[in-house]
Amino acid sequence: MTAKIIEGLPVAERLRAEVTAEVARLRAEHGLQPGLAVVLVGEDPASQAYVKSKGEQSLAAGMHSVTHRLPADTKQDELLRLIADLNADPLIHGILVQLPLPKHLDEKPVIDAIDPDKDVDGLHVVNAGRLVAGLPALTACTPVGCMVLLRDTLGDLTGKHAVVVGRSRLVGKPIGQLLLAANCTVTMAHSKTVDLPAVCRSADILVAAVGQPRMIRGDWIKPGACVIDVGINRVPFDNPEQAALGKTKLVGDVNYKEAVQVAGSITPVPKGVGPMTVACLLQNTVTAAKRIAGIDS
Amino acid sequence: MTAKIIEGLPVAERLRAEVTAEVARLRAEHGLQPGLAVVLVGEDPASQAYVKSKGEQSLAAGMHSVTHRLPADTKQDELLRLIADLNADPLIHGILVQLPLPKHLDEKPVIDAIDPDKDVDGLHVVNAGRLVAGLPALTACTPVGCMVLLRDTLGDLTGKHAVVVGRSRLVGKPIGQLLLAANCTVTMAHSKTVDLPAVCRSADILVAAVGQPRMIRGDWIKPGACVIDVGINRVPFDNPEQAALGKTKLVGDVNYKEAVQVAGSITPVPKGVGPMTVACLLQNTVTAAKRIAGIDS
Repeated sequence: MTAKIIEGLPVAERLRAEVTAEVARLRAEHGLQPGLAVVLVGEDPASQAYVKSKGEQSLAAGMHSVTHRLPADTKQDELLRLIADLNADPLIHGILVQLPLPKHLDEKPVIDAIDPDKDVDGLHVVNAGRLVAGLPALTACTPVGCMVLLRDTLGDLTGKHAVVVGRSRLVGKPIGQLLLAANCTVTMAHSKTVDLPAVCRSADILVAAVGQPRMIRGDWIKPGACVIDVGINRVPFDNPEQAALGKTKLVGDVNYKEAVQVAGSITPVPKGVGPMTVACLLQNTVTAAKRIAGIDS
Repeated sequence: MTAKIIEGLPVAERLRAEVTAEVARLRAEHGLQPGLAVVLVGEDPASQAYVKSKGEQSLAAGMHSVTHRLPADTKQDELLRLIADLNADPLIHGILVQLPLPKHLDEKPVIDAIDPDKDVDGLHVVNAGRLVAGLPALTACTPVGCMVLLRDTLGDLTGKHAVVVGRSRLVGKPIGQLLLAANCTVTMAHSKTVDLPAVCRSADILVAAVGQPRMIRGDWIKPGACVIDVGINRVPFDNPEQAALGKTKLVGDVNYKEAVQVAGSITPVPKGVGPMTVACLLQNTVTAAKRIAGIDS
């Protein structure tokens, strides 16, 4: 028996369609067009690609979409001034600063400067606190994307034992909080965990967010468990001739070939969690716009 | 074999002595006297007793100590004005508003109004976010007290499996975050957890914070585990004649008589976690004063 493959693309597409319909409704019924501002400093090619995709997808969803491309030598106070302008701009409901910033800039004061109510990347410490407190928060897109896939696959998550491997601030910890809010029993495991394979084997839901290629083996998985692989690691091709040519590919934190024989369902890498990210960013922007405008439904 | 009893009183006394010495050093070396302001609205007898104890203990530690007693019919904006004054007062480094407030007052805006850097009760959403983010936070006194007792009993907590039963915002969740920061593998269990006894039996460290008298039975405990009982529940006396007279006593969330036969160490109720609370409040006030003054050591 092999696992059900949890494909991110169709779920992301459905979510984008829902967001598009909601944007149309908000424009028609409330005269509200959710607006997203994406800020890119410098010319890192990967960042440029991400920013382009975010701009295109927000436009396609019917949003007001602005991309600010700043030169690599932008000064800290110039960037902070732009954030202040975007905080004050009534047409903008979501502000995303593409990370990483060039090395001469200090990320933390930049994130701290974003109005928490417009922080659609869920990076601000106030949003971390709201999430823990059970208050309306904006939560980082990858954790939210994992939850959408889990609910789509399993339905109600109440009472399931979820094990999250990895305790990063932006992925592991918020996923743990969201799973707890969904009434899972949640175990946070990490590099200091004793007998990690046994802890993983106790999971009905296993979330891998460590950044170690294929670390989680097939025999660490309870038969029938749902496995969400957040890892995106670039490794050489398995075939030594192609590897010698420098060919690389993307793999997750889970040994997929082994896991797919044991799990009940599993996200592939790529095309599992990855495609959810931008769709969740659009959803966060709609959520932010509605909250700022005081629209409950 | 019976468990080592983790007595809170001597540990709290030692912590208070450390705080007293640190206050004396700050006054001598830096001309800094940590200041605590306690605000009480109304005349609830239990709240009056708590506030009195906080005032006396902060004075005894050499602090600047102010207690504001406001009448029960104090208006929301009057209370907010006092908070604003205390935020601005350079002699005050810690602000504690005794809860619960009278029913006509709205707690959340009051807590939100406290400068997070003076929030020695660790209630502000910014401090919840800082705790999750691993930034310097002020953390609620009961969770901090549990950690002091655990470290005093077990030393290094790295790799231990901690199970926290209860996911309240002010106790269960921050204890979970502190245990995770101490490199424990942390499981958050709660009312929706399936087979709670088995989950508890997997714990090296079991923290009970549910508010259900004697809910956790002896056979839920792994032999040798360390049990921290945060519950304080008032129940009738076991003896039916005394119970019929209306006599009551305090018990924890753990069935102590059973647990003491199985655990390696256990906090009693009362005189376990309870006495730590005010000592940790004093420590938080010193921490806040040093951070505000920019004193690193």
